[in-house]
Amino acid sequence: MLAITVAPGKGGSARLEEVPEPRLTDGDVLVRALALGVCATDREIVSGQYGSAPAGEARLILGHESLGVVETAPPDSGLKPDDIVVGIVRRPDPVPCVACGAGEWDMCRNGRYTERGIKDRHGYGSERFRIESAFVVKIDPALKHLGVLLEPASILAKAWEQATLIRRRARAWQPRTLLVTGAGPIGLLAAMIGAQRGLDVHVFDHNQTGVKPGLVRDLGATYHSANVAETLDNLEPDIVMECTAVPAVIRDLLGRTAPTGVICLTGVSSPGHALDLDIGALNRAMVLNNHVVFGSVNANRHHYELAANALAQADPKWLGRLVTRRVPLERWSEALESRPNDVKVIIEFPPA
Amino acid sequence: MLAITVAPGKGGSARLEEVPEPRLTDGDVLVRALALGVCATDREIVSGQYGSAPAGEARLILGHESLGVVETAPPDSGLKPDDIVVGIVRRPDPVPCVACGAGEWDMCRNGRYTERGIKDRHGYGSERFRIESAFVVKIDPALKHLGVLLEPASILAKAWEQATLIRRRARAWQPRTLLVTGAGPIGLLAAMIGAQRGLDVHVFDHNQTGVKPGLVRDLGATYHSANVAETLDNLEPDIVMECTAVPAVIRDLLGRTAPTGVICLTGVSSPGHALDLDIGALNRAMVLNNHVVFGSVNANRHHYELAANALAQADPKWLGRLVTRRVPLERWSEALESRPNDVKVIIEFPPA
Repeated sequence: MLAITVAPGKGGSARLEEVPEPRLTDGDVLVRALALGVCATDREIVSGQYGSAPAGEARLILGHESLGVVETAPPDSGLKPDDIVVGIVRRPDPVPCVACGAGEWDMCRNGRYTERGIKDRHGYGSERFRIESAFVVKIDPALKHLGVLLEPASILAKAWEQATLIRRRARAWQPRTLLVTGAGPIGLLAAMIGAQRGLDVHVFDHNQTGVKPGLVRDLGATYHSANVAETLDNLEPDIVMECTAVPAVIRDLLGRTAPTGVICLTGVSSPGHALDLDIGALNRAMVLNNHVVFGSVNANRHHYELAANALAQADPKWLGRLVTRRVPLERWSEALESRPNDVKVIIEFPPA
Repeated sequence: MLAITVAPGKGGSARLEEVPEPRLTDGDVLVRALALGVCATDREIVSGQYGSAPAGEARLILGHESLGVVETAPPDSGLKPDDIVVGIVRRPDPVPCVACGAGEWDMCRNGRYTERGIKDRHGYGSERFRIESAFVVKIDPALKHLGVLLEPASILAKAWEQATLIRRRARAWQPRTLLVTGAGPIGLLAAMIGAQRGLDVHVFDHNQTGVKPGLVRDLGATYHSANVAETLDNLEPDIVMECTAVPAVIRDLLGRTAPTGVICLTGVSSPGHALDLDIGALNRAMVLNNHVVFGSVNANRHHYELAANALAQADPKWLGRLVTRRVPLERWSEALESRPNDVKVIIEFPPA
């Protein structure tokens, strides 16, 4: 079968190539790939900055934003042929930490997890793949190719759940205003979930062209494109979902929420961005206003299920506009290019 | 009666002077002062940097760390003459925000609270004062003058409760290691509560002389005095209680906790301390490790009650060593001087 593979750590090593059929040890459910979403992590892996192959292997099958159709599944798995499914990305270490052992592998304590298509495990970027049935999530077939948005949506479902659990520390408080920084797929899904929760949603992004401003407006939300500091002069958000990973944006956000406000960091930035920050002023603002800043990564099974509900409730036409390019497998490398008006780019697999 | 008063905003204006007896409108409980704790906020007010007098008045009666004995109280108040009591500091606005309205005035949303001895309300630094019975907390008489530690302990009880509520977001996780930065009264009380909770407690402080190292050791905790970055090289704390408010210390802590770790900021610093910070690296560490940083200020009635329990459970000899100077009222200004080996300094009022 064909697969997109890469030699982790070697920029420019990615290729589409013939690989052996998936091993039985990968899981009891055999899935035929329909589509694969591409994100910044995939680009980091392809550029050689991130990722690791399974032990003893030189190459990694890429891909963690999966969508496929079940070919075979055990009778007691709750799955049957033709079910549309997505595979969960992270797996606990065989000797799990306390968090992984409780199914909270997104809150892993020892860092010994593996991740399909990212860390020590082959991904979903092959014509067929196998998954353990406990790591398969069923998708509403009405979503069709939009089911590929489940993995990014699960990241937001986790971030939102964390924000909700954290804000319970102020029992009487109900947030009203949400600021999302960044209008990529993660930012737009954050705004979509905020709108579903009835918040007054604001989205900040530099990009004033393309589909993004319209996507924001069609959520009933407000689009801001001046700069973050100016945006905050007229807005005291209760919750900020930071989805740019841009250090200057993060600096300008810190300490600027409403009292008891919460900033959720969701984007993975690179080190080496030293900036001047008035830590005296920041600490003072955070203490006197009971501010919280937290980071959120990955998602566990519960979050995939929350995300499946959020996608099922969304307007499918709006979701469809998030997928700005659909690239056939044989032109896979085009999907890994960043183009100015991209939101989500997906690779489509040939029919059976 | 005598009171310590200050003209807020005017450095050097503090004095001990005759003032009228407390007004009935201050509350239904009349208290005779036994002692008053002094903290950095008092020094900020006396130096003219902070604080505000009641509307229409030029001077503020100083003092928010109170201890007194009830002289008169309404029969249905649950209080009687000779009860040893402490007054709560913050009061909600007469038209309270949602948080203040629910008794969570420590999580105030609109900033329109008042604070005795700090913001728009006379403090407890007078021979007699009145309090509303709902804002009086009874103290175990066995604590004697150590009851004056209740207000600072309430700040920590709030901070600990917040840390506990926040860490519930990682359901399976039980923290084991605590780092406290700063061995002033707040830091030592943070360490004391950590030890009461069975944590492996570490305290970082620059001061290697005086009573602090011994106070830390006698909690069964470890004292560190090199620098924070070095201390963290050998320690991955689950919880950090930051009690120095020193910008360089805070910078060195950020992003350095264990996965899912929590940093609680408790100290009020001044603006104007710009430092170089690698925000790319910090954001990356916070996201990939699900880190939380939060600020905590003030305390509501529930926290005073938690703090009263924590003090009642503590070794009174250890608590006694926290009070390093007891200054009589007529020498009040000495209590406001910072001396090298001070932990908590209190002003004692003359007997009736």
